[in-house]
Amino acid sequence: MIAEILCVGTELLLGDIVNTNAAFIAKELAFAGIKSFWQSVVGDNSKRLLESFNLALSRADVVITSGGLGPTYDDLTKETAAKCLGLKLELRPDLLENLRKIFARMGREMSPNNEKQALMPEGAHVFENLRGTAPGLAVTKNGKSIVMLPGPPRELEPMFSGQVLPWLAQMAGLGTLVSHGVNIFGLGESAVEDRLKHMMENYSNPTLAPYAKTGEVLVRVTASAGAPEEAEKLIAPVLEEIKSRLDGYVYGIDAGSLQNALVNALKEKKLKIAAAESCTGGIISGRITEVPGASEVFGCGLCAYSNEMKSKLLGVNPGTLEKFGAVSAQTAIEMAQGVRELSGADISISTSGIAGPGGGTTEKPVGLVYIGYCTEKNYGALELHLGRGYADDRNLIRYLAASEALALALKLLRLE
Amino acid sequence: MIAEILCVGTELLLGDIVNTNAAFIAKELAFAGIKSFWQSVVGDNSKRLLESFNLALSRADVVITSGGLGPTYDDLTKETAAKCLGLKLELRPDLLENLRKIFARMGREMSPNNEKQALMPEGAHVFENLRGTAPGLAVTKNGKSIVMLPGPPRELEPMFSGQVLPWLAQMAGLGTLVSHGVNIFGLGESAVEDRLKHMMENYSNPTLAPYAKTGEVLVRVTASAGAPEEAEKLIAPVLEEIKSRLDGYVYGIDAGSLQNALVNALKEKKLKIAAAESCTGGIISGRITEVPGASEVFGCGLCAYSNEMKSKLLGVNPGTLEKFGAVSAQTAIEMAQGVRELSGADISISTSGIAGPGGGTTEKPVGLVYIGYCTEKNYGALELHLGRGYADDRNLIRYLAASEALALALKLLRLE
Repeated sequence: MIAEILCVGTELLLGDIVNTNAAFIAKELAFAGIKSFWQSVVGDNSKRLLESFNLALSRADVVITSGGLGPTYDDLTKETAAKCLGLKLELRPDLLENLRKIFARMGREMSPNNEKQALMPEGAHVFENLRGTAPGLAVTKNGKSIVMLPGPPRELEPMFSGQVLPWLAQMAGLGTLVSHGVNIFGLGESAVEDRLKHMMENYSNPTLAPYAKTGEVLVRVTASAGAPEEAEKLIAPVLEEIKSRLDGYVYGIDAGSLQNALVNALKEKKLKIAAAESCTGGIISGRITEVPGASEVFGCGLCAYSNEMKSKLLGVNPGTLEKFGAVSAQTAIEMAQGVRELSGADISISTSGIAGPGGGTTEKPVGLVYIGYCTEKNYGALELHLGRGYADDRNLIRYLAASEALALALKLLRLE
Repeated sequence: MIAEILCVGTELLLGDIVNTNAAFIAKELAFAGIKSFWQSVVGDNSKRLLESFNLALSRADVVITSGGLGPTYDDLTKETAAKCLGLKLELRPDLLENLRKIFARMGREMSPNNEKQALMPEGAHVFENLRGTAPGLAVTKNGKSIVMLPGPPRELEPMFSGQVLPWLAQMAGLGTLVSHGVNIFGLGESAVEDRLKHMMENYSNPTLAPYAKTGEVLVRVTASAGAPEEAEKLIAPVLEEIKSRLDGYVYGIDAGSLQNALVNALKEKKLKIAAAESCTGGIISGRITEVPGASEVFGCGLCAYSNEMKSKLLGVNPGTLEKFGAVSAQTAIEMAQGVRELSGADISISTSGIAGPGGGTTEKPVGLVYIGYCTEKNYGALELHLGRGYADDRNLIRYLAASEALALALKLLRLE
């Protein structure tokens, strides 16, 4: 089965919104093993939309659209698709009734315009919209299908994952799909690919697909089978194989993010963490507290930029600052020790580095970062070089330094 | 002039990355008044890329591509465009020399592959890449042009704004374009549009276009004229009119962000700021220290989640916490007072609130946030209700609360 994505909306052509729908649908299709060779965007114009449908149907088995299902005169997707396939539109009393219920629930009056959303091409398969008024739909004729979805991502995304993908998988004879994500930190995308090359090239069920995120790699493992349990059985040994090939670099399965994995590990062990930040300037605290329920495990975060604050707040010895400098392993360690003591946390992490663009020297260039840590039994520091030589590396260096600190804390927790 | 956007890259087809380039280019074209009716995405495949070029050139005067200018075998854009227009590729010694310099500067050896990036179709106009190795280019034949840009947004965006748009404007006979952004905080997009409706509908040079960002609105004012100074003269009175119509909601012109405006205002007045964060958990510190040179004006940031830490680190009276609760104006004020004293900063801000998803009550629902402040002469707190009723409001509430605190600090600075 070959699919093609066609997004409809003048706001996309004007660049008022970024087309996250195309990326979302594309990723879901790739995950299901459905091929897609083109994506297009067209405005709210029936002539150009019809041209787009004709072209897309000449290249693909299924055309998936987003947008243009609203109640106003410039919402044209359903009408144009019906015209393209030579199908009549009919009013569906069940959908009209459902629309009335939605409006009643919101306490708003339904305008006559909204009745348009209960019109469907004859024979349409309807996808329920759990977060809006526009139902999705699919129509099939002569072996070609058009799937039409509402534009707002919060409506489209659950509809696609929950209803459209199973429908497509069935159409394509793919059975039930199950997928798990392996979270990897500390190894670049090409190194991950090298180590998993054999699996990626030779395994067909489950399949493996790597995705690079800033400083991280996610490997998605997807199996199809008659039932979810069978798919899980196919996936389990592959997850184990990935873990063993990637050694200590796997930090979780479906873990979401480093901060999520860290907060969960702390909760499990009933331990608290604290952070003393210089170059990351609050990002570590911000990422930890992004996780709901972080308050259970987060002692405190201190962001001390100046030498004065490092001594006053964190008790860093002025002699250490003078002898080794603020950007040094020694200072990072004393920062971690200081915040651990102050907060009474079990484990602490710290950062001190040169994020740039100014402040670098030959000895201590932009990108040099020390990550300090301290536990009951142990303390130390990592030296990292995170610069890439660009003028605007600052935020990348800060983000990666925070990721390194979170990953280090997670490792310490698992060792202790 | 009609333009069409064609983005090249299998990673887009797989949904590995979101196509921000299309939105960026589309917005810039709209801003220049250049029409665009289609956008397409195609993979790294020469046959399909050639089809895409032929189709796009049949519909538009200028085709603008992103991606496929790298050094590897699957980077095909230049080769395919040359084939499409019947142009030969030639090695440009000046570009080769420049590439060698870039690699020397990075201290890396240039691989023979990279020489490919110095190949250009005959007669190409070259756009310099200030952040990477792949130059951009434009070729024109029989009144049709193809403009090719590198894929990474950090390379494409400055190249487009700085070099491509002026080139297009000249091609289209638009003269010189000058644009300024009015930064607005505290007023929603529709309220901004209401107040500027008359200007937006009736002004043609300069034009006004509003863009909504999280919690903010940017109004872009763009004029075209024979020379930049003339365009500036057209814009100046319009900026004044916007400011007066939007009252105190304009926080800067081309200010970039609240944190940028704040750091600059602090530098100007030679003052320091400190932050005590509860519900924002480090985001305020993180945003302030995102600005290069923030160390000059940033005292410290303390992130105290628990009552114990609020008392121990910030000196919040346990009686205040007991009587009014951690989420209260009184606590927020004492947090601000505490961090100001501790850091010796001139001005301080604080946050205490319920970011959710848990922890809300009828009296203190999710989204209730207090922003405290303290200066030499003054102290106080704002009460805000930032919840929208969705389960995933947490990060939005945290981000908006940080924005409110930054905006408040900026206001205080301008009053003092």
